[in-house]
Amino acid sequence: MKNIIQSVKGTREFYPPEMALRKWMYGKITEVSHSFGYQEYDGPFLESIELYAAKSGEELVKEQSFVFPDRGGNLITLRPELTPSLARMIAQRQNQLVYPIRWWSFGPFWRYEKPQKGRTREFFQWNIDLIGVDCPEGDAELVAIAAEFFKAVNLTSSEVKILVNDRRLMDQQMVKLGVTSMDQKKSMLSIIDRRDKLSVTDWESYVLESGFTSEQLDGLKAILNDKELYKSSPEVMRFFNALEALGVADYVVYDPRVVRGLDYYTGIVFEARDVSESSRAILGGGHYGNLVEEVGGDSIAGVGFAMGDVVLPLILEEFGKLPELVLNPAKVLVTVFNAECHAYSLKIATKLREAGINVLVYPEIAKIGKQFKYADRVGVQYVIVAGPDERDQEILQIKDMQSGEQSSVKISEVVEAIKKLM
Amino acid sequence: MKNIIQSVKGTREFYPPEMALRKWMYGKITEVSHSFGYQEYDGPFLESIELYAAKSGEELVKEQSFVFPDRGGNLITLRPELTPSLARMIAQRQNQLVYPIRWWSFGPFWRYEKPQKGRTREFFQWNIDLIGVDCPEGDAELVAIAAEFFKAVNLTSSEVKILVNDRRLMDQQMVKLGVTSMDQKKSMLSIIDRRDKLSVTDWESYVLESGFTSEQLDGLKAILNDKELYKSSPEVMRFFNALEALGVADYVVYDPRVVRGLDYYTGIVFEARDVSESSRAILGGGHYGNLVEEVGGDSIAGVGFAMGDVVLPLILEEFGKLPELVLNPAKVLVTVFNAECHAYSLKIATKLREAGINVLVYPEIAKIGKQFKYADRVGVQYVIVAGPDERDQEILQIKDMQSGEQSSVKISEVVEAIKKLM
Repeated sequence: MKNIIQSVKGTREFYPPEMALRKWMYGKITEVSHSFGYQEYDGPFLESIELYAAKSGEELVKEQSFVFPDRGGNLITLRPELTPSLARMIAQRQNQLVYPIRWWSFGPFWRYEKPQKGRTREFFQWNIDLIGVDCPEGDAELVAIAAEFFKAVNLTSSEVKILVNDRRLMDQQMVKLGVTSMDQKKSMLSIIDRRDKLSVTDWESYVLESGFTSEQLDGLKAILNDKELYKSSPEVMRFFNALEALGVADYVVYDPRVVRGLDYYTGIVFEARDVSESSRAILGGGHYGNLVEEVGGDSIAGVGFAMGDVVLPLILEEFGKLPELVLNPAKVLVTVFNAECHAYSLKIATKLREAGINVLVYPEIAKIGKQFKYADRVGVQYVIVAGPDERDQEILQIKDMQSGEQSSVKISEVVEAIKKLM
Repeated sequence: MKNIIQSVKGTREFYPPEMALRKWMYGKITEVSHSFGYQEYDGPFLESIELYAAKSGEELVKEQSFVFPDRGGNLITLRPELTPSLARMIAQRQNQLVYPIRWWSFGPFWRYEKPQKGRTREFFQWNIDLIGVDCPEGDAELVAIAAEFFKAVNLTSSEVKILVNDRRLMDQQMVKLGVTSMDQKKSMLSIIDRRDKLSVTDWESYVLESGFTSEQLDGLKAILNDKELYKSSPEVMRFFNALEALGVADYVVYDPRVVRGLDYYTGIVFEARDVSESSRAILGGGHYGNLVEEVGGDSIAGVGFAMGDVVLPLILEEFGKLPELVLNPAKVLVTVFNAECHAYSLKIATKLREAGINVLVYPEIAKIGKQFKYADRVGVQYVIVAGPDERDQEILQIKDMQSGEQSSVKISEVVEAIKKLM
């Protein structure tokens, strides 16, 4: 084996099978997004670092992004997330756009992280947002979209759950514990966010080391175990009623431990996870009070979520739900009998394509056995053979690769014959 | 107006109208690629600079690419073209893949060029290749794909032409002029490539300054004007016969001035241009004798082309062929009468979605007049109204926004009623 130049660590190559899976996911995303009336959009892939300085978490920009000077010396960032670009796009046309805005996107993102199972440096992400709305039913719509997506990819409500909480509810609870300053609240939210990443004892030490009292720790533990906390919030009750009407309540569970890392969430927050030992986060999002102000627009509320393309296939695999995908878009192969008949084969193929049938032509002269073997290996169902005799009689032979049956058809009737077989 | 953070020069934002156009092009590309049985694939967007050092032109990598060190110090390139990634992907699985390979791709690429009309720093490109074939009929297939794409986007053969030449033919002609060394040949090919970029006198001086004699200049001029040159090549004659059988001969013209810049072409080369004063190049490609050797594989022949997404819309616009695109995926809006009826509206929408109908729900309580105005502005055709009386009677009202007609329908029959209207 010669020395082949390697691809960059953390990037992926999409051979037709991997591409078919990506396209299948994209197809399901499109279907669900459109069924709720969302329009597709996209931002640039390169952005200036200033855009992220305003909105994203410090860690995301400073430690996890690809940032480099371009040939003109400007600092360019390979986008690590879409929300700041979305915010700018809204801000730029804030007075021309029709609200509520329902937009979705699916495209590449980059993060300089340690590549591991479920995490790559180059990945795709679905982003979907409802903007200009500030009510629990709007939030419920986004959660319903996530649940409908799981239905569409055949994951049941016993395999995945969408865990929900409300930042306002947590805020009230923190105040009750005497946690009142913005800094203390931020600190406690990040402590809650780390609950699942540490052992119980490590986490408890971490709470105390962060300056909270043992009474506050006990209070916090009580809050995080209170699965009925949401009943004190009329907004969260409305949110659950809406989910019931949207037919997805079975996918949704209240969980006071979900707070989401990003600073800009101000209401409902949610996170979907699979129900298994290793329980991975599949998607996450929430309600924000103020999308565009920091990039230079006027305050506007919304709700949205993002889902990467790396974890979902792992979960589908775990539950035996990976789809069987058709890799060859053509079901018909036209063989080439000899040099003299090459043009006749091309004409047959052209006739079929004009009728909307996808057709492969064996592109060069080869033994007919080799061409049949090729048809078999690439998964073609019908093989057309036309030699000099057939050409002179304006007929051709169609062989069904599965049944082995062969039939003789007039060239003028080939389209109908193939359509009937398919 | 506040100070909004700008996007990076040479990048584009795709609001729903621009996205709909990109998706429309991608849809036509998919349709045509699949009709010839090509499978979709994709390479990474980040590649190491070594990959391009082997294959691409010097100028492309050294002057026109975004190259930067990652956080680990490795030199990363934002891919300026796909062919080197394709070559590596083939080389890595050279013995497992089934030949001939027919692959296509559509994705983002980056070049650090001066942004201008028809040129951006971040762009999309269609790549399509037939690999493992070395005959004129294979080359003709790729040209037929290009022509079928033009048909699919409604550009006629009087609006665009695919200009064709053969590098082997040019080689023979150069030998006849006494141009025999590899360096001299390369120099003359690049002179031919620049024919359209310079005035006649500038170009003639350039030929002489490059070390050719005035006899050679005269000979070259004669060659470049000889539209019948191809008749001396049996391969090119076969290529044209195949195009005839493929039904696309009207799109193709022999032109001895087309040689294409890249070094790796070894046979048929082609370039599509619009027929207008400003005649722009839309796509280009050709036959290569040896795709993968330089990235570490065994020699293998193929033919392919690439088309960017920036020039085509300009040409469609010039010929009045830009499509009218539907921007809103939903044709139905369910209004919300009041807080009490909100859940009923959500239930109606859910029922319609379950039947495969895309539906918008007005996401919050608002005056009914405002909701109708919204329906009108976003281009919804049917508006559903259901207040407390309708809910109690299990009916709803459907209003056709175009005719203004309103009808009362039982909730159990709403799916059939909407499907009938659509």
